[in-house]
Amino acid sequence: MERLLRSTLAGLVSRGSLEVHTASGARFAVGDGTGTPVAIRFTDANAQWAFLLDPELRFGELFMDSRLCVEQGSLYELVCLLMINAGQAPDNPWLDVVDRLRFSLRRWKQRNDRRRSQRNVAHHYDLDAALYALFLDQDRQYSCAYFEHPEQDLEAAQLAKKRHITAKLHLEPGQRVLDIGCGWGGLALYLADVAQAGRVLGITLSEEQIKIALKRARQRGLDERVEFRLADYRELSERFDRIVSVGMFEHVGLPHYDAYFSHCRRLLKDDGVMLLHTIGVSGPPAHADPWIDKYIFPGGYVPALSEILPAIERAGLVVTDVEVLRQHYAKTLRAWRERFMARRDEAVALRDERFCRMWEFFLAFCEAAFRHETLVVFQIQLAVRNDSLPLTRAYIAQRETVLRFVEPGQIP
Amino acid sequence: MERLLRSTLAGLVSRGSLEVHTASGARFAVGDGTGTPVAIRFTDANAQWAFLLDPELRFGELFMDSRLCVEQGSLYELVCLLMINAGQAPDNPWLDVVDRLRFSLRRWKQRNDRRRSQRNVAHHYDLDAALYALFLDQDRQYSCAYFEHPEQDLEAAQLAKKRHITAKLHLEPGQRVLDIGCGWGGLALYLADVAQAGRVLGITLSEEQIKIALKRARQRGLDERVEFRLADYRELSERFDRIVSVGMFEHVGLPHYDAYFSHCRRLLKDDGVMLLHTIGVSGPPAHADPWIDKYIFPGGYVPALSEILPAIERAGLVVTDVEVLRQHYAKTLRAWRERFMARRDEAVALRDERFCRMWEFFLAFCEAAFRHETLVVFQIQLAVRNDSLPLTRAYIAQRETVLRFVEPGQIP
Repeated sequence: MERLLRSTLAGLVSRGSLEVHTASGARFAVGDGTGTPVAIRFTDANAQWAFLLDPELRFGELFMDSRLCVEQGSLYELVCLLMINAGQAPDNPWLDVVDRLRFSLRRWKQRNDRRRSQRNVAHHYDLDAALYALFLDQDRQYSCAYFEHPEQDLEAAQLAKKRHITAKLHLEPGQRVLDIGCGWGGLALYLADVAQAGRVLGITLSEEQIKIALKRARQRGLDERVEFRLADYRELSERFDRIVSVGMFEHVGLPHYDAYFSHCRRLLKDDGVMLLHTIGVSGPPAHADPWIDKYIFPGGYVPALSEILPAIERAGLVVTDVEVLRQHYAKTLRAWRERFMARRDEAVALRDERFCRMWEFFLAFCEAAFRHETLVVFQIQLAVRNDSLPLTRAYIAQRETVLRFVEPGQIP
Repeated sequence: MERLLRSTLAGLVSRGSLEVHTASGARFAVGDGTGTPVAIRFTDANAQWAFLLDPELRFGELFMDSRLCVEQGSLYELVCLLMINAGQAPDNPWLDVVDRLRFSLRRWKQRNDRRRSQRNVAHHYDLDAALYALFLDQDRQYSCAYFEHPEQDLEAAQLAKKRHITAKLHLEPGQRVLDIGCGWGGLALYLADVAQAGRVLGITLSEEQIKIALKRARQRGLDERVEFRLADYRELSERFDRIVSVGMFEHVGLPHYDAYFSHCRRLLKDDGVMLLHTIGVSGPPAHADPWIDKYIFPGGYVPALSEILPAIERAGLVVTDVEVLRQHYAKTLRAWRERFMARRDEAVALRDERFCRMWEFFLAFCEAAFRHETLVVFQIQLAVRNDSLPLTRAYIAQRETVLRFVEPGQIP
């Protein structure tokens, strides 16, 4: 069996240096000996079998259970080593079968009706708010930040994200805005407070998020103009001048794209504008990562642009701009992981050791995927009409300048 | 038969005011009586039959032959009237059949191999250069201009287009650039002269264009650094740092998108960047307009973004930015038509009356489609790697500022 482990790992790792300590105490090296040396150890033979049968799922799981230990180098370096080699691995008929099966199951796994959506959301976002406070910025922006320059810190980059998105909404004074997937309310409050939106409705399916969002609105005296509601986007029937949706589309699921965009179309007034901010893949469509699907975002899906656009076109919405944020999420995830690791003891006290290993794996794995794999963030601006936005994109930078000027008065 | 004409036109025109004078001298009005009144006259009964059987093709054809005359209002107003009503017409089973047939033929009509591509290009671009000089800007930019503000004139907006595209190429000094579909050479010369590209290769299949491009390079003393070659993109094997392709992709044809992008990928170095500028539709995929296909751009096709992206993803290219230019081409076409009509006598002398009616129809029809229909221009920026461009799009405006400063030295 250890020969099979060796040949499988040699197939998966052709570049870099990976030393493997097997459960029986044997050692072997795979890769071409370049780069940072990384060593791993399997604690038992069953762990090795589990890894062989389904590395994509078991790799993270064995790390969580401390049955696959990083003996030299860091978890992040290990994950990067595997990512850099991904796509270059020679054919492995068994892994191909697992892969194809996952691909064919993806529509089934993403049948996110209202009940299932709420359950999926609760799985991740109803975790203790204190946990998120350990690693997010002060405003609890739990999506990709926008780094205006490479050295910008997380707090500033998250503020810049809200500013950038707001500028793209091309708000007119007094307009009504809908925020689909409002999280803990940061963006909705910014829209009302800094950008002077008329009224903002933020919706989420997370009960924990809504409690905090409501409290923050009251504390900032914005509860007259900002409403937060525990609701599914499919339940709304009001109409809005602007719709914004940040980091929520990942939970919609492929089979629901037509429903999502046609519903957004119905909610938008005829001169309406929408800004969709979502993780995507720059390569061809893929299946959802099985470990992420099981432990982090059940029912989620990261689409290629080619999978999003047909539904937009069928809904009668016009794509007016697509910005592709590359590397920004890698930088965001790095900052989150550093903050999380610095306060890991508090996280263990809140949850337990296995949870923290899961969280560390989640943040390291995603950072590596954004840095070395095809993960990106799409900011897709949509309109109903062809002529409801200015001729050029210059207004975006101009509005950012104005917002930057107004912001100092904002209470974090 | 005139009753059939009346019911068909009433189906096609529900908004606006259209008065129809039939060949027999009868008159009727269709529409809701709003807007600018327009009147048309059919000169003979056969013209009416032709229109009934295939309005999409025959409408323009009958106008060219002076068998459908505009008696009140302008051709442009007539075309707009029909466009505004398009998509709202009730079902007409016969027109549905014609439509579906065209849709199924579209792949066959676009089998643009090297020989056919050259013939298609010759059909339009090998027309007398003096004709194009009548209505294009001084630099002969025969693609959508970029209006930095609504009142900018054509000359300035075409210069702004070259500047905008060049900025998006993120050129480093001395880099090699390929211009696929170089036209009369204006952009390639700008890249070498203003943007200081190392070497530029411009390719076209039009013999008339290449002659003029070569002459211009010599006249401006740029023939050492700018090469123009009569070549198909599929024939090249050199590698380039940058590729630009403006208004050429419309001639590639749907069945060749995979070949186009995978060939571009092969021609690009690993830190390469490409800028594709093409007409597209913002709605779902459609068939090519039959009149445009027959008289203006045989073998051409205007794709939806959802039709372009799968081929990009399969080719291993990363979409790094998509700008959607709305209304810019309507403004460009308006300027071209005004210039053309002001020098129509010269155009008749160069060609003949029927040709000029065709040209007028072409420019008016396209303007109306960009203004009222779903036509837009996509500027799709592509890269091989995820990290070969700056974090934000700010460099585009910064480079434009620098280019604007250097431009005054440019010889038009």
